[in-house]
Amino acid sequence: MTDEKESVEFDGLICPVPLAHNSRIVLGHGSGGRMSRDLIEGTFFPPFDNPILRAGDDAAVLDLDNGLRIAISTDAHVISPIEFPGGDIGRLAICGTVNDLSMMGAIPLYITASFMLEEGLAIPRLVAITNSMRAAAEEAGILIVAGDTKVVEKGKVDEIFISTTGIGRIREGVNIYGRNAQPGDVVIISGTIGDHGIAVLSARGDLGFEANIQSDVAPLNSLVADMLQGAEVSKGVNGIHVLRDPTRGGLATALNEIAVQSQVSITISEDAVPVRQPVLAACEILGFDPLYIANEGKLIAIVSEDCADLVLASMRANQLGRDAAVIGEVTSGPPGKVLLKTSIGTTRVVDMLAGELLPRIC
Amino acid sequence: MTDEKESVEFDGLICPVPLAHNSRIVLGHGSGGRMSRDLIEGTFFPPFDNPILRAGDDAAVLDLDNGLRIAISTDAHVISPIEFPGGDIGRLAICGTVNDLSMMGAIPLYITASFMLEEGLAIPRLVAITNSMRAAAEEAGILIVAGDTKVVEKGKVDEIFISTTGIGRIREGVNIYGRNAQPGDVVIISGTIGDHGIAVLSARGDLGFEANIQSDVAPLNSLVADMLQGAEVSKGVNGIHVLRDPTRGGLATALNEIAVQSQVSITISEDAVPVRQPVLAACEILGFDPLYIANEGKLIAIVSEDCADLVLASMRANQLGRDAAVIGEVTSGPPGKVLLKTSIGTTRVVDMLAGELLPRIC
Repeated sequence: MTDEKESVEFDGLICPVPLAHNSRIVLGHGSGGRMSRDLIEGTFFPPFDNPILRAGDDAAVLDLDNGLRIAISTDAHVISPIEFPGGDIGRLAICGTVNDLSMMGAIPLYITASFMLEEGLAIPRLVAITNSMRAAAEEAGILIVAGDTKVVEKGKVDEIFISTTGIGRIREGVNIYGRNAQPGDVVIISGTIGDHGIAVLSARGDLGFEANIQSDVAPLNSLVADMLQGAEVSKGVNGIHVLRDPTRGGLATALNEIAVQSQVSITISEDAVPVRQPVLAACEILGFDPLYIANEGKLIAIVSEDCADLVLASMRANQLGRDAAVIGEVTSGPPGKVLLKTSIGTTRVVDMLAGELLPRIC
Repeated sequence: MTDEKESVEFDGLICPVPLAHNSRIVLGHGSGGRMSRDLIEGTFFPPFDNPILRAGDDAAVLDLDNGLRIAISTDAHVISPIEFPGGDIGRLAICGTVNDLSMMGAIPLYITASFMLEEGLAIPRLVAITNSMRAAAEEAGILIVAGDTKVVEKGKVDEIFISTTGIGRIREGVNIYGRNAQPGDVVIISGTIGDHGIAVLSARGDLGFEANIQSDVAPLNSLVADMLQGAEVSKGVNGIHVLRDPTRGGLATALNEIAVQSQVSITISEDAVPVRQPVLAACEILGFDPLYIANEGKLIAIVSEDCADLVLASMRANQLGRDAAVIGEVTSGPPGKVLLKTSIGTTRVVDMLAGELLPRIC
């Protein structure tokens, strides 16, 4: 997100300072938290460097001819198990990319999918996944326009991985970027947090008890459309400054990213963040903080104060935002910091996810 | 490619007739040949069905607002080993997608990359790959604008898989599709065939001798730009009817696809197809037919007779097309058939690749 880190060359390769010759990939590099950021800033940004990539938002924004602005986003999906309460890898692959486009205020139009299949995968399982993708694509109103399929030997991939890439159109006047949060803005979450992560843990049998928690995986483009309409009624679509879906790394990590990108402080109230009782119970037993658990059908909205009420009302009128709540505000406090007012009245810094919490959660 | 196959439902899922409940994925489903086609037509087309996807070309063509036509293409790259003579998985990932866009006559603009990394992968290996991607992207003149990284446990993926998706702009007047071959058209290949496949086999140590063969992996967009210019000088860009890069499944499979899409017959002369001596020698020892070996820096062009000379001259003036040769013609013979005039004067049918030849070649 920042340009602070210099790259150096070793063995003629463009490479970052912090990664030594003998370092290796660990699971934490895929956490979506601090280690992911270090890997991306160290290994990917220096060779690929360009301003579009560096923006560091959920999707890249491309200015094409004739004034057309297009958002493009790509995701690899490696979730395990491939079926879980509330969804499967197919639904996740479609929704993950639809949501990244939606977080730029784009209307998702087209999606591509590439499949890496393990030799021996039962074809009925694959058919269940492609049917699930179809249903999610219909729900989101997008077309699957291109694909690719590779097969590797048994044991060289875990059942099935799916990469999806989507493109969407951003209409005039919509300018939603991670760098746009301003002091005084209101922070909204669209619903309960932690459902996806705990549902996947439960599918793995890692909870040790029956949880009856469903993943929230859903395409959020209809919710964003309603929000833009709500904002338009009050102060115009420019009242929506930032949208982000708190996936890997959870709400805490996503808020930290925004705080860094916008160089602002964000304060949230623990009591205001909606968490389902069984999710809270599972987190307490496992020692997890729900602020770091992945979501796949929720969004954070940072909006100007004068249109917050109408945006919130438009969210609550949509089934996907019925539990939407104001959870905090943007302040001119220490730039890049997220602060939590706890239930017991203290205030503490909430950092990005460090290390790895739940591997292969998406 | 055709709509002949009906889909049926079982267990409430949209599913193809030919795939039974108990069938499983085998390596042949990733061959790029007949089994790949059956899997795609059986498992992916019925649920995802739409005309853009059904076109079955190297990239999908999207009509956006304001008369803008965009090509989009996606590829999963699972090659083993990840480094081979003449390239690595990074160069392959960029070139594979650039070439699919180029085969629609599109000017490649932007590319996204998603990475699936194995826990324990040495970071200097990853850095070598990202640097190789950078070099290939610069060569092709495209920007890497978005990415994603996932990490899975050791043994759940083989080192690194990379999925790339590219978009490019198709300028007005360019209409290059697999369905456009016409009787009387000339068939051109841009250079020697089989180099990539044999180079990868050699890197695996599967040849049993020193071959000194380099993969041909290269971005073909500059070659296509020169060809369009060559065609323009004679009869306009519409003189170029079909372009296709013969990757998995080789020249024979790609020609069969075109013959089916255009419902024409294609006749090629064995003696006219350029093959390097060491590739021919390796194929003879291993019992392979070079017509089925993968290429990653070659293209087939099917052009109207009246502009063939100028297109061929423009190809030969480009380093990537210096060995370009006319190898046959499109006829009104049996639709969907490819015929080979052999060195010994006989004519035989050349089918798509059946089964699997070289797994994980791209």
